Amino acid sequence: MKCEIIVIGDELLIGQVTDTNSGYIARRLNPVGVDIMRVTAIRDLEDEIISAVEEAMSRADAVIVTGGLGPTNDDITKTTLCKIFGGKMIFSQSTQDNNDALFARMGKEMNSLTRSQAMVPDCCKVLPNVVGTAPGMIFKREGKMLISLPGVPYEMQKLIEDSILPLFERCATTDKIFHSTRIVEGFTESNLALYLADYEASLPSTIKLAYLPKPRLIRLRLTARGNDSEALYCDMYQATLKLDELLKDNIISYEDLTLQEILLRLLQERNLTISTAESCTGGGVASKLTSVSGASANFMGSVVAYDNSIKINTIGVSEEVIKEYGVVSTQVVEQMAKGVAEKMKTDCAIATSGIAGPSGGSKQKPVGTIAIGLYCCGETRSCLVTIPATSRDRNVERFVDLALFNMIKFIKG
Amino acid sequence: MKCEIIVIGDELLIGQVTDTNSGYIARRLNPVGVDIMRVTAIRDLEDEIISAVEEAMSRADAVIVTGGLGPTNDDITKTTLCKIFGGKMIFSQSTQDNNDALFARMGKEMNSLTRSQAMVPDCCKVLPNVVGTAPGMIFKREGKMLISLPGVPYEMQKLIEDSILPLFERCATTDKIFHSTRIVEGFTESNLALYLADYEASLPSTIKLAYLPKPRLIRLRLTARGNDSEALYCDMYQATLKLDELLKDNIISYEDLTLQEILLRLLQERNLTISTAESCTGGGVASKLTSVSGASANFMGSVVAYDNSIKINTIGVSEEVIKEYGVVSTQVVEQMAKGVAEKMKTDCAIATSGIAGPSGGSKQKPVGTIAIGLYCCGETRSCLVTIPATSRDRNVERFVDLALFNMIKFIKG
Repeated sequence: MKCEIIVIGDELLIGQVTDTNSGYIARRLNPVGVDIMRVTAIRDLEDEIISAVEEAMSRADAVIVTGGLGPTNDDITKTTLCKIFGGKMIFSQSTQDNNDALFARMGKEMNSLTRSQAMVPDCCKVLPNVVGTAPGMIFKREGKMLISLPGVPYEMQKLIEDSILPLFERCATTDKIFHSTRIVEGFTESNLALYLADYEASLPSTIKLAYLPKPRLIRLRLTARGNDSEALYCDMYQATLKLDELLKDNIISYEDLTLQEILLRLLQERNLTISTAESCTGGGVASKLTSVSGASANFMGSVVAYDNSIKINTIGVSEEVIKEYGVVSTQVVEQMAKGVAEKMKTDCAIATSGIAGPSGGSKQKPVGTIAIGLYCCGETRSCLVTIPATSRDRNVERFVDLALFNMIKFIKG
Repeated sequence: MKCEIIVIGDELLIGQVTDTNSGYIARRLNPVGVDIMRVTAIRDLEDEIISAVEEAMSRADAVIVTGGLGPTNDDITKTTLCKIFGGKMIFSQSTQDNNDALFARMGKEMNSLTRSQAMVPDCCKVLPNVVGTAPGMIFKREGKMLISLPGVPYEMQKLIEDSILPLFERCATTDKIFHSTRIVEGFTESNLALYLADYEASLPSTIKLAYLPKPRLIRLRLTARGNDSEALYCDMYQATLKLDELLKDNIISYEDLTLQEILLRLLQERNLTISTAESCTGGGVASKLTSVSGASANFMGSVVAYDNSIKINTIGVSEEVIKEYGVVSTQVVEQMAKGVAEKMKTDCAIATSGIAGPSGGSKQKPVGTIAIGLYCCGETRSCLVTIPATSRDRNVERFVDLALFNMIKFIKG
């Protein structure tokens, strides 16, 4: 089924807020045969909403609109959709009941604006929103469907899970779509493409290969699309089998996992615990590891040693070593890794010390330089790397990924 | 100047990658009078690129396209643009020289695919990309302009800073746009809107008010737009003056800052240092604080005490207290906060212990429950809160924000 998404809100067009709703919707609906062809972000302006909706309705079977359903004056999606689909606004008792219950749970008073949330177009089906005041709405016209959802991510998500996903699952769609991803290291994108040129040319028309490069890694995605599920599965099976043969030693994951997920799986398989000692990454490695559910089985804890005094007093880095080699050095991170592993009684440890910028760089150790120390069951390894520096946030993100990547390689041996 | 952005890539339409490029472009170009009217995300398909480009060119003065410039088969933006603007592909010596220098710096060999990156349409102006192999391109038609940039964020950003921003600054544009944001607490969105109804009605037509609600906070954004800069500044000055009078005690920031920036500014003003002891947030509070450049002046370090043994052995939480009250309790986080402040010799400390889910919840303490302990110059405060639980990542994000928010309120008194 061909679907388009329209996300509404001035904040998206001035870059104050990043749209993550469309990605969530795509990830959830794609596996049940919904093909997102286009995502359009527009401002809270009636003319622009009308034209974007009409254009999308002319191309797609279903259009999902998010945002612009708040009670304030800048939110006009509901009344504009009412106009487009030729209805009038009426009072919805079920929405009012839902909102009364919500406010009672929060122990808050409802005011006239919140009460106006119960006014809905008479030309739509109302979808209850149990976690917010703006209901979802389904409009239909000439066999096509427009779904309006709130822009607040967790409200939108709840409606997708409770109402929209079951709705699409019930629709008989013809196009089946599925993806298979391999994470590959040791190639540049273009070298990998040359290496796989014959393979790519030999793929059946139902299978498409895409390259998503990241620093040091490439996510290779095979997408199967067609209307015969069984034949598709067969094509995909053959395609992945061949790919895995061609790349076996370079594949670090057979699923579309994050580096932290790959590392935690490895630790789990080998029954190892881990801790981190972080300076420049400021808790970012720990934070990524703990973002994985079940991390507590292998991740014990971390010391963010931002100030040198903490490195010395808390994880036993020697002041002399800092003086002699500098705080961004392999000597210091090795001591940090060993120190934190000892302190937290873990089998493995990751340590980082570097210059995230924008200030603090020198000619010898410019912004983007990081020392990574790794410890695993008595063995220590370390490196000093300089990445092309960009923004502070981005540098830290790459430092974290680099530390996780090196630890994966170290454990794999 | 009216501008649209088109972001190209299948990965965006299946939710594998989130588009952050359009937000970056908007934030950088908006202040020089470029108004982003629409952002469209499309797949790597020739027909769809052609129709999206033609539609955008018909509406806007300038169109910026990102993505699809890699050397692999799935990337077709360059040849498609060449077709749209009626050119043919030619060899660009300057691009080849740039890419040779890039590969030399990386110490890598160039292959035939990478060499193909030097082929460019003869109907465009080539913009050098010093950090990647895909050059930027500017096409012109009937007084309008199309700019093509690589999709890799840091390459795109470098081209925006070096070439595109100066280009737009040189254009004589008529529309001036600027924003002023206040961060407000103590209101629901609808209560605030009612409170500000008269104020909003009294605003001149050049000023628009928007509400961006977050849990416990609302960002209020005033946007001024018009062609007379001086009058606009005057309107905005009056509008913010009145707003600040109306909201003074509820404003926690007069700029569009993050909670971590607000907290660090407060600490800096009062010459206080801080540390954190984190369980459920797994280093997330430390990571947010250290994302701010200059954080090291006030942030000393952190202990991520994920496992109970770390809480007991590293920051001196009493085993009896954990047994008696449970690890998610005000008693435990108070000990954690005091313990880490003492250990790291800081004036203030934040401690967290909670249930991020999806598992680990109980009837009494469901997923979404967090205990937050705060310490500041001898005083301790703590609370036990349950937020409406969603995904693990989102719960942790809200825990971190809640901890930062409570610390700001605590220090402000």
